[in-house]
Amino acid sequence: MYLPSFKGLKRIGQNTEMFEFEIQRRDGRARTATFLTPRGEVKTPMFMPVGTQGSVKGISPQELSDIGSQMILGNTYHLMLRPGEALVAAHGGLPGFTAYPGPFLTDSGGFQVMSLGHMRKITEEGVTFKSHLDGSLVTLTPERSIEVQEALGADVIMAFDECPPYPAERDYIGRSLERTIRWLERCQTVKTRPDQALFAIVQGGVHQDLRQRSLDLTLPVGTPGFAIGGLAVGEPKDQMFPAVAFTAERLPEHKPRYLMGVGHPEDLVAGIALGIDMFDCVYPTRTGRFGYALTDDGRLNMNSSAPRRQLQPLDADCDCYACRHYTRAYLAHLVRAEEMLAPRMLSLHNLRYLHRLVERARAAIAEGTFQSWAATWSQRYFKAGTPLWFEQALSLGAQVQRTTD
Amino acid sequence: MYLPSFKGLKRIGQNTEMFEFEIQRRDGRARTATFLTPRGEVKTPMFMPVGTQGSVKGISPQELSDIGSQMILGNTYHLMLRPGEALVAAHGGLPGFTAYPGPFLTDSGGFQVMSLGHMRKITEEGVTFKSHLDGSLVTLTPERSIEVQEALGADVIMAFDECPPYPAERDYIGRSLERTIRWLERCQTVKTRPDQALFAIVQGGVHQDLRQRSLDLTLPVGTPGFAIGGLAVGEPKDQMFPAVAFTAERLPEHKPRYLMGVGHPEDLVAGIALGIDMFDCVYPTRTGRFGYALTDDGRLNMNSSAPRRQLQPLDADCDCYACRHYTRAYLAHLVRAEEMLAPRMLSLHNLRYLHRLVERARAAIAEGTFQSWAATWSQRYFKAGTPLWFEQALSLGAQVQRTTD
Repeated sequence: MYLPSFKGLKRIGQNTEMFEFEIQRRDGRARTATFLTPRGEVKTPMFMPVGTQGSVKGISPQELSDIGSQMILGNTYHLMLRPGEALVAAHGGLPGFTAYPGPFLTDSGGFQVMSLGHMRKITEEGVTFKSHLDGSLVTLTPERSIEVQEALGADVIMAFDECPPYPAERDYIGRSLERTIRWLERCQTVKTRPDQALFAIVQGGVHQDLRQRSLDLTLPVGTPGFAIGGLAVGEPKDQMFPAVAFTAERLPEHKPRYLMGVGHPEDLVAGIALGIDMFDCVYPTRTGRFGYALTDDGRLNMNSSAPRRQLQPLDADCDCYACRHYTRAYLAHLVRAEEMLAPRMLSLHNLRYLHRLVERARAAIAEGTFQSWAATWSQRYFKAGTPLWFEQALSLGAQVQRTTD
Repeated sequence: MYLPSFKGLKRIGQNTEMFEFEIQRRDGRARTATFLTPRGEVKTPMFMPVGTQGSVKGISPQELSDIGSQMILGNTYHLMLRPGEALVAAHGGLPGFTAYPGPFLTDSGGFQVMSLGHMRKITEEGVTFKSHLDGSLVTLTPERSIEVQEALGADVIMAFDECPPYPAERDYIGRSLERTIRWLERCQTVKTRPDQALFAIVQGGVHQDLRQRSLDLTLPVGTPGFAIGGLAVGEPKDQMFPAVAFTAERLPEHKPRYLMGVGHPEDLVAGIALGIDMFDCVYPTRTGRFGYALTDDGRLNMNSSAPRRQLQPLDADCDCYACRHYTRAYLAHLVRAEEMLAPRMLSLHNLRYLHRLVERARAAIAEGTFQSWAATWSQRYFKAGTPLWFEQALSLGAQVQRTTD
């Protein structure tokens, strides 16, 4: 336990050497890379489990290491409200607090203020809202977000942004993304810790011209990584993935690209095809708590009656603890009996499934077989036929990208 | 996965060699022993975690092994109703079903029919009740209990008994214990698996003469172990422990003695003083789910505000995962945030606390210092003064027991 004394550090902004991003292999727009962080090197593409309130629901840090997690996401909004960032800092930041010793990323709180705060009021200064916990009035600004994220001590921190809902007025998205740029500049100005990389977030909804405008304003800031925000908020996938493709191919080639809040297995495969390096989502743990298991054959509903008599594992190809030890019948019994071990084991399996999925994608990219691997995977996964948006994403991904840096 | 073909076995009843109980050391009435079972040797005194519905709530088999669990208890009542014993048998019994490879004990269902079944009707034949799950009418008899327990495949199975509530009419307890003996004989008659030891249960409530009557009828049956039932059902401890003492000293010296449904740390120490070898209780996991941690300083309420700022572990002496990795502040945060990891980690710690408690008792017995160890432990544990019932149990335990076999 130590209290980090980072207050005395010079405001040197970013230390790019500390966050080297090195591309190893390319296959179409898909690529594998290593991303160096102060707490270790991560291999991309990668998926980040979400530890909203300082724990990946039901899963221990040892298990996260065992299943191949590389970086954990923490939520600034939740942690600043409870237990408060000072207590986390008193533990030496999130690694000491949560006992997960590897790399962390924290979001800025912007997205969750929008989705969870009550009576939000957005001004140039920031956002004022009522806490969903006790109704108290809280203000989050770019400066406050960075202050909290420096106390939480993640390796990668995110610029404070506004993520407009879907659908939103075009004009509103346009004004919002301009304000988000001004907020980004304020984040850069107050940032002090050289051992944290600040990523900017490109907004613009599903509109190409607004995405272009956001890119034009954001890229010159030159952060060591860029996120694609404002997607996976309810828009159809045939609008989401063209926006991913448009944005990703205009991001710098030699910096990590992070598609926020994504996702489902098919979203990861399509995103990787389009050159995305980092993903995060509560989906694997949340759907696990609801009794669903992710497999190459699609999502298995453990609440249904069929698995109750099946003596095979959830997924014969999986090496997670649940698949090595339990039958579907046993796990379906636990689900039905509402035993705590059910959400725990299904969450663990689902996280491992997504980690294995990106591991297989990395291997295919390294072998130059990503397109055929993804096509084979999708034929088994999409029982009712591969959707057009997925095929288009793969097809776009096969086209060699123009160089942007 | 295999379906055990035990149906063809001869009805040879018990195989005593398979269940050898060897006393190593004595200290007053307290003793350490090894108890051989088909799935491995266990060291007594020992505490059994309860896996009611086929899982120790929230805890994996690997964790049970890691914290020193030696034998797990399964509940016949719950498992016969859901998922049904046939499915468990199709997994090769509880070890295959639950993936815990060590020894198991199953109760007979008798106690839980009384506490959970609706509209119970007790006759000489058995008990008819409405399932608490779906209201269906179910009959449990000595024959049916043994049939289910043979399918569940535990190493130790329990005779079907009636456990009268507290308080109950003296006359009723008397009639009930006589019927329980007749049920025991029916259990013995139908039992077929030599790889399962059947334990008889001594009843009689808190009445010495009824306990004596139950002993007189039960001991001649000569089962390879004996349980003390009908206690820890709501009676005051100054009535419970004299009944434990009276019964335990009249049980055979060279067979295991099991005090059912107990318990709290102080009950284990007092019970061990009186010569008890085996305990089980849902208390450590249940109180963990309610946010309490067991320690030598008493029960720590993690729902209170004090632990939220404490950077020390739950218990500095404990070697469980939670104590090696987490501060009280972190765990109190998880409790407050209703994170699944909180009940999981508190349950794990509490189980480890009871396992460490019996390990320390075993070490003290082996060194001949049990009385002083127990006195020292109790001075720290009972902040408000050691209760008389506890002191009397220790004092009785110090007196050398008369030999009964």
